[in-house]
Amino acid sequence: VSEFERIATLFAPLAAHAPEAANLLDDTAFIKPNTGETWVVTTDAISEGVHYLPNTPPALIARKLLRTNLSDLAAKGATPRFYTLNIMLSNTLDDLWLAGFVEGLRIDQERFGITLIGGDSIAVKGAHASFSITALGIVTEPQIPLKRSGAKTGDILCVSGSIGEAAVGLHLASGHTLTTLNQEQSTYYQNRYELPEPRLVLGQALLGIATSCMDISDGLIQDADHIAKASGKELNIQLEKIPIATDIDLRKAVTHGDDYELLFTIPADNWEEAQARTALIGIKITQIGKVAEGQGVMVRDGSNNIVSFPHKGWKH
Amino acid sequence: VSEFERIATLFAPLAAHAPEAANLLDDTAFIKPNTGETWVVTTDAISEGVHYLPNTPPALIARKLLRTNLSDLAAKGATPRFYTLNIMLSNTLDDLWLAGFVEGLRIDQERFGITLIGGDSIAVKGAHASFSITALGIVTEPQIPLKRSGAKTGDILCVSGSIGEAAVGLHLASGHTLTTLNQEQSTYYQNRYELPEPRLVLGQALLGIATSCMDISDGLIQDADHIAKASGKELNIQLEKIPIATDIDLRKAVTHGDDYELLFTIPADNWEEAQARTALIGIKITQIGKVAEGQGVMVRDGSNNIVSFPHKGWKH
Repeated sequence: VSEFERIATLFAPLAAHAPEAANLLDDTAFIKPNTGETWVVTTDAISEGVHYLPNTPPALIARKLLRTNLSDLAAKGATPRFYTLNIMLSNTLDDLWLAGFVEGLRIDQERFGITLIGGDSIAVKGAHASFSITALGIVTEPQIPLKRSGAKTGDILCVSGSIGEAAVGLHLASGHTLTTLNQEQSTYYQNRYELPEPRLVLGQALLGIATSCMDISDGLIQDADHIAKASGKELNIQLEKIPIATDIDLRKAVTHGDDYELLFTIPADNWEEAQARTALIGIKITQIGKVAEGQGVMVRDGSNNIVSFPHKGWKH
Repeated sequence: VSEFERIATLFAPLAAHAPEAANLLDDTAFIKPNTGETWVVTTDAISEGVHYLPNTPPALIARKLLRTNLSDLAAKGATPRFYTLNIMLSNTLDDLWLAGFVEGLRIDQERFGITLIGGDSIAVKGAHASFSITALGIVTEPQIPLKRSGAKTGDILCVSGSIGEAAVGLHLASGHTLTTLNQEQSTYYQNRYELPEPRLVLGQALLGIATSCMDISDGLIQDADHIAKASGKELNIQLEKIPIATDIDLRKAVTHGDDYELLFTIPADNWEEAQARTALIGIKITQIGKVAEGQGVMVRDGSNNIVSFPHKGWKH
């Protein structure tokens, strides 16, 4: 099957509802933004053997890649619109595999309201495929996108959901068992690793009330440092306030990553409003610290002792 | 060196002049389009051993990747603005190699007025690195982007420059010599392969007068078929009118690809205007055929015999 047949049969249907994609028959896509839109652009790549386990079903690989990009849009409060896809195929993958990959994209396109508008597929030498996505979303005036750089002294530091669930899921997906978990719980955790939930609705709910926001992909402690650096502030984190998965060591939970929960700062005056909005959408948020003058991240335990993390998160 | 240090020292300087990039300290970039802009989006990937020869200097790899994306923008008449970069690094590449890659980007960013606004770098298993770029450009009203789909019956089919020069260059770069060429000519052809010139000024000059346009990357015959398909027309090509490099077989020239010249259709009434505009910018354009009712590409030789091409261009 030639690349052009592949585009026509596999990928063009993913782009059928977006006139911007010109049926994938052109070199490029064409977007006409509306007045007052800020376009939020992000990109992420994954590679076989590094970012996903061998024999992962292709639909899951595709969905996780799309979702990691969607998670970045979520952290800015953006509404997803379009994405481009690069597939770098090893000769170990056939068209049936690719059809599974495309089916994964189709499912999550519908679920999250994003559409393929372009791409490129190439062959690579060796047995390891790679994939990258560049995703585009919008935030419309009077709203402005949430950034990492807006944390103010005195703001409350918050996190959504429970941290470490993906770490438990990876442990299970790698073939380990946890006797404390029943089947339903095991499936829940494994899903959290394989199919993270981009917190799009949460990010949009935080527009206008949070001062900074990012998604947790590399580990809470390491990612908190990005908000600290970008904002020129110190984040004081109370370790034992961090909500974690039941079956994981606290220190592992906050350094593992792959959570795709949102970490954000909010003025104390906005806390009640944040609670009201997040209750409406059924997402738990928890206060885990404060923003102070200074720089970097300072973690303290329940006895107010400083806790150091030689390993803060995922090493790239 | 961690990814974050790499971003700060190597990549952030490439983004320093674009507030949209937020110093590469955020998850995303933030673009505020102006009224009347159409944003043109394209993406291309390359991989070691498939798209570039081993031991190619990293600066050249970076520049060629950027230029293949710029060539797609050129074919739409777009003005380049921003790009995102994914680097999928094998463990055979060190930071010195990467510094060379970045220097190549820096040179061509300045030359073509495009700026890095985001990216991702990952490790891949195996010895073969890959790279992808998604590039964004604009066309501003009253202009509208050139597309593949606008060819009309009776239009003239034209091509810029000379076809097959990159094919000669690859031949030379692969270690062959051509005794008919002096040193200066050899260098010229090799440059044409290693550093294609995106025809940005030409594409912009064709806005408003061409009816369709694309860049030739896979081979003239194969690429012409894309215009035919997207426009629902037949392109009649007179083989011997195609301007080719002096030291190449005609059939090879029109099927090799990597030319990055523009192939476009234009109403006969606009030919004089096209000649005037392209003379001003010092680019040769040549009439090579006509648009007719029908579908696909029909190539005829000087005796009006049909010439068939079992191999029409680069197989993906």
